[in-house]
Amino acid sequence: LPMVARMATDDYVGFTFFVGCMAMMAASAFFFLSMNSFDRKWRTSILVSGLITFIAAVHYWYMRDYWSGFAESPTFFRYVDWILTVPLMCVEFFLILRVAGAKTSLMWRLIVLSVIMLVTGYVGEAVDRDNAWLWGLISGIAYFVIVYDIWLGKAKKLAIEAGGSVLTAHKTLCWFVLVGWAIYPVGYMAGTPGWYDGIFGGLDLNVVYNIGDAINKIGFGLVIYGLAVSQSEKTL
Amino acid sequence: LPMVARMATDDYVGFTFFVGCMAMMAASAFFFLSMNSFDRKWRTSILVSGLITFIAAVHYWYMRDYWSGFAESPTFFRYVDWILTVPLMCVEFFLILRVAGAKTSLMWRLIVLSVIMLVTGYVGEAVDRDNAWLWGLISGIAYFVIVYDIWLGKAKKLAIEAGGSVLTAHKTLCWFVLVGWAIYPVGYMAGTPGWYDGIFGGLDLNVVYNIGDAINKIGFGLVIYGLAVSQSEKTL
Ligand SMILES: CC1=C(/C=C/C(C)=C/C=C/C(C)=C/C=O)C(C)(C)CCC1
Ligand SMILES: CC1=C(/C=C/C(C)=C/C=C/C(C)=C/C=O)C(C)(C)CCC1
Repeated sequence: LPMVARMATDDYVGFTFFVGCMAMMAASAFFFLSMNSFDRKWRTSILVSGLITFIAAVHYWYMRDYWSGFAESPTFFRYVDWILTVPLMCVEFFLILRVAGAKTSLMWRLIVLSVIMLVTGYVGEAVDRDNAWLWGLISGIAYFVIVYDIWLGKAKKLAIEAGGSVLTAHKTLCWFVLVGWAIYPVGYMAGTPGWYDGIFGGLDLNVVYNIGDAINKIGFGLVIYGLAVSQSEKTL
Repeated sequence: LPMVARMATDDYVGFTFFVGCMAMMAASAFFFLSMNSFDRKWRTSILVSGLITFIAAVHYWYMRDYWSGFAESPTFFRYVDWILTVPLMCVEFFLILRVAGAKTSLMWRLIVLSVIMLVTGYVGEAVDRDNAWLWGLISGIAYFVIVYDIWLGKAKKLAIEAGGSVLTAHKTLCWFVLVGWAIYPVGYMAGTPGWYDGIFGGLDLNVVYNIGDAINKIGFGLVIYGLAVSQSEKTL
């Protein structure tokens, strides 16, 4: 009994699931194994980057199997993954802004917003598809508030106070959230019925989500890694 | 043959099993990989925190499979998990109070009480369900003695002697046992027949247990982690 299913050579969704799975595993090894080369105060951030890709690796493992076995969108596992990794990305914002005295309330605010964004997204995608546009709208509002908070709100102020490479890293992460995360609503519109059918109907929701995840999870982690590198060079 | 089962998007019990499983795996990676950043005398405590979540990760792996395969409560695996993790939590109390000279007799007393609590709970839930209320009562008495011991007994005296952040951590763990552990009897009453049917009948035993486990296992470990952080900052 083989452990992998037979894969059609033109199964591009399957391809992105398998590539994504391995990329997440490799990224986890990279973050976990390099964390001890840095100053103690950066280790936790890199460890959390590794946790994010590790969690994704496990769920891509399920999802690639689910896809090859049932040829069905693994919505359930997609959201199990997000409900854990997106809050951890909010933790990352907090961790790098701690040098400027960020409080845990900032972290919890972002976490709550991200949970609202994901729960309403799940309802629209899986439970109440008829009103997908409405759930997507609520989800989008939560997303918008997150964008506002980090670009112009409290988090931004702290980043300016910290200055230097923390400010640079914060700015890059802000771009990830504004542009990288915006990939997901596109996938959502491609995969749910609504007035937007004509615009995004041709795209495959899973390919879009898989590309988004690779950029956002691994890229996000590498920004933190780069920050740790630049800060450690300064102290050495 | 796919390794994961097809999951209904409204299977919320299954959702908590999968989220719980992954959260335990990620927490284990976190504790195992960060332990060496601390003073030697805190490493064992953090390692034990990791063992608790690791044991849980394995059993959640079984339980999520059991649930998706048989749609049945995995009581057997639930108690295999608890019979290992709850005594280890008693060990944690001993480990942090060692600085004030805690003796192993304190640890063994808590371990024996926790085993009584769990064995009688298992009998009520799985063997002699007709008398679930009686077994629950005996279990509850053992639980009560544990609460007494740590809040007002010997353990409390040692925590006061140790003072500082050990006392703070001990207090937080005491709250976990009083409030966090009290989630379990609620799940028990939701899942067994008895005079309490009318009160808790609407809840799902597994959802309640899964939420309890996430709070108690990961939260408990993070309190120990926080203690190690605060103590290591002092020495550096
Ligand atoms: C706005 C919006 C959405 C946003 C999803 C996002 C922003 C997900 C981010 C996931 C990440 C960053 C995962 C990687 O770790 C949904 C839920 C698709 C529903 C439609 C509206
Ligand atoms: C009082 C009582 C119970 C208590 C269970 C407890 C307190 C379990 C704790 C488990 C933990 C902390 C696991 C996490 O690691 C039972 C057995 C449900 C039976 C009913 C009465």
